[in-house]
Amino acid sequence: MADSFSYDTLFSKNSTDTPTNFVKHAKYDFAVAYPAPETLPMDGLIQALQTAVDSDSGKIAAEMAYYPHQLGARELREYTSSKLTADRGFTVGADEIALTNGSGEAIGLVIQALTDPGDVVLAEEYVYMGTLNQLRRFGADIRGVAIDEGGIIPDALDRQIAALIASGEKPKYLYTIPEHQNPTGSTLSAERRKAILKIAHKHGMPILEDDCYVDLRFEGDTQPAFRALDDSGIVVYVASYSKLLAPGLRLGYFTASPAVMRRALGFKLGSGPNQFAAVAIEGFLRNNLDSHRDNFNPLLQQKRNAMVASLEENFAGSGATWSVPQGGCYVWLMMPESSDISAIRDKVFEQGVGYVAGTNFEADSSGRIGRNCARLCFAFESPQKNTEGIALLGQLFKQHGAM
Amino acid sequence: MADSFSYDTLFSKNSTDTPTNFVKHAKYDFAVAYPAPETLPMDGLIQALQTAVDSDSGKIAAEMAYYPHQLGARELREYTSSKLTADRGFTVGADEIALTNGSGEAIGLVIQALTDPGDVVLAEEYVYMGTLNQLRRFGADIRGVAIDEGGIIPDALDRQIAALIASGEKPKYLYTIPEHQNPTGSTLSAERRKAILKIAHKHGMPILEDDCYVDLRFEGDTQPAFRALDDSGIVVYVASYSKLLAPGLRLGYFTASPAVMRRALGFKLGSGPNQFAAVAIEGFLRNNLDSHRDNFNPLLQQKRNAMVASLEENFAGSGATWSVPQGGCYVWLMMPESSDISAIRDKVFEQGVGYVAGTNFEADSSGRIGRNCARLCFAFESPQKNTEGIALLGQLFKQHGAM
Repeated sequence: MADSFSYDTLFSKNSTDTPTNFVKHAKYDFAVAYPAPETLPMDGLIQALQTAVDSDSGKIAAEMAYYPHQLGARELREYTSSKLTADRGFTVGADEIALTNGSGEAIGLVIQALTDPGDVVLAEEYVYMGTLNQLRRFGADIRGVAIDEGGIIPDALDRQIAALIASGEKPKYLYTIPEHQNPTGSTLSAERRKAILKIAHKHGMPILEDDCYVDLRFEGDTQPAFRALDDSGIVVYVASYSKLLAPGLRLGYFTASPAVMRRALGFKLGSGPNQFAAVAIEGFLRNNLDSHRDNFNPLLQQKRNAMVASLEENFAGSGATWSVPQGGCYVWLMMPESSDISAIRDKVFEQGVGYVAGTNFEADSSGRIGRNCARLCFAFESPQKNTEGIALLGQLFKQHGAM
Repeated sequence: MADSFSYDTLFSKNSTDTPTNFVKHAKYDFAVAYPAPETLPMDGLIQALQTAVDSDSGKIAAEMAYYPHQLGARELREYTSSKLTADRGFTVGADEIALTNGSGEAIGLVIQALTDPGDVVLAEEYVYMGTLNQLRRFGADIRGVAIDEGGIIPDALDRQIAALIASGEKPKYLYTIPEHQNPTGSTLSAERRKAILKIAHKHGMPILEDDCYVDLRFEGDTQPAFRALDDSGIVVYVASYSKLLAPGLRLGYFTASPAVMRRALGFKLGSGPNQFAAVAIEGFLRNNLDSHRDNFNPLLQQKRNAMVASLEENFAGSGATWSVPQGGCYVWLMMPESSDISAIRDKVFEQGVGYVAGTNFEADSSGRIGRNCARLCFAFESPQKNTEGIALLGQLFKQHGAM
């Protein structure tokens, strides 16, 4: 298109000149955030859709011909309600759940409902980039909470909030991924969750719980959701079908107290999400959730095992440590503090191994704590590619003086 | 959920307590904004999806396993590019098109890129409610442009802009549905479009062209898109697959000059829209667009004919007039000025006939011009129900003293 008309004086003050983000992939792609594509039940989803249409074609067509309900397709909300009761131990009605275009939309809506520019928001020291970007866009002043291999340290959280209040910067809310955290892979124990809830109540500070990895556990016990431990409304619960099925389906959801739901939904730019995908997901999961998880999670475990074994083989003695997550998608690699693997990320990518440098996840973007860290997605590539790619990563780190 | 935790001091200043919108349907539902559900090609869409998966299951699964490109699935962007060339007479590349969650998301993104609170924005005197709501949310000061049965009157537009500039209220942009306008059903002639473009250039005022009904023409000639008449970047073009296929698919798109695209996409809350629906739409339309339109539009015409014939039979001599649109979904009914059909809308709904009162579409929400008008959707119900429903509407108007 010709571009002779000038918009220079016309753009809104809030708008930014955002370059389109074209993702590139390395040969060994540990930079991604995706589950195992080989388990994606495309045929099962299509079959579920066809079954729904065959059983009541007129009803499905009539529903599709309407703009979706603002909360999204009722069938999938009802299914989600029963899944939350069965899997997460709390019960909310179908009308207390809003389906969204991925959990990203849900998180964005809640952030907008709760954040004024300059508000202090707490999150793990390392934060999922999608949320980080949205928090920044809406002007949050993001502060990282100290973590260890078990996630947020309650005492540190309590001290930090007290200090912030003392300096007139009372935090507005806490964002956390308590199960298989992105990027560190940690899971908060039930005890820590209870302690964090107590702290949250003490300070009147809501918790935005992002439970998007909970279906991806292959070891250990799932911990109770914050939302299952607390019915007061202080917890806003967000989750997704993106990891369990496929990101391309764009179906996430959230549930919160009625006032929060209304405020958050007020920021929607259109009606509820795709009913085509909703019908397929509902039909598929209602009959195949267990078999799908039984197929999916052992494969994730194999992939994690391959990556961790290759780290042991190729990184032992280097001073590196890494998380060994019980589920999810990520191993968190920590090189010795003197090692700057953020600086060499592009070179290593060109040479065949993709990872996301720890600096990208820093809550306060200080560049202070993440330079020696990397998020390695073990879920996307095959076990063999995990083995090979980590070996190559070790060679490349040595070549670039990082190991 | 219990709701004991108070958010009273926590909501953002921008947030509003928006009640969830539960839509109810009357027996004769002319209040909807939906195309004919009986033509919705569910089987065709599912088959297209299955064909795509069968032909390259690995590729589809790998793509679905990634988060969609910010612009949406490339296949559907390429198809959209070729469709715009063939149907709308202008050519933009696949990378100049962004797929969105319905055209509502596209319109919302563009509004955000171009609107600061208090900005004056022009639109037809009666405006599509979805856009109206978004303009209001982002603080636009919306002014209606005078229309007749042929849509915006260029001379009136020019005079209005001059007056606004004289009073220091230069309008930021013009929003218009030039083809089968919602709610009035009018189509702007090519001559008027050219005149409006000249006025737009004179005042440096972009045009946000909403072409979402263009595929629904059953009579007369499609008029050239503003975008086809002007390559300068002054036109932002938005359209949708919602009306042609199904609103429930949530797939719209927009194209604009690169700077506008970047600013608008900067407001996205997540990645591109559903790839599942995108693959189905692309596969279906690539092989069936013409046959689908050949099936769809004659039925729309029958439905319009039934509604118009029933208006002639039941409203003749009452002083009422109505538009006879050549496509789209809506007849615009204008009762005599003394007749307030806005006030009796709820009663008439309870008695079996739904319509949207003209006051809901007023650009300036003055309640000044729309009280005697109603939008009647002829596209959703069967021809017979259109006939019966309009007869009942006439009886009810008489009963309530509106006719």
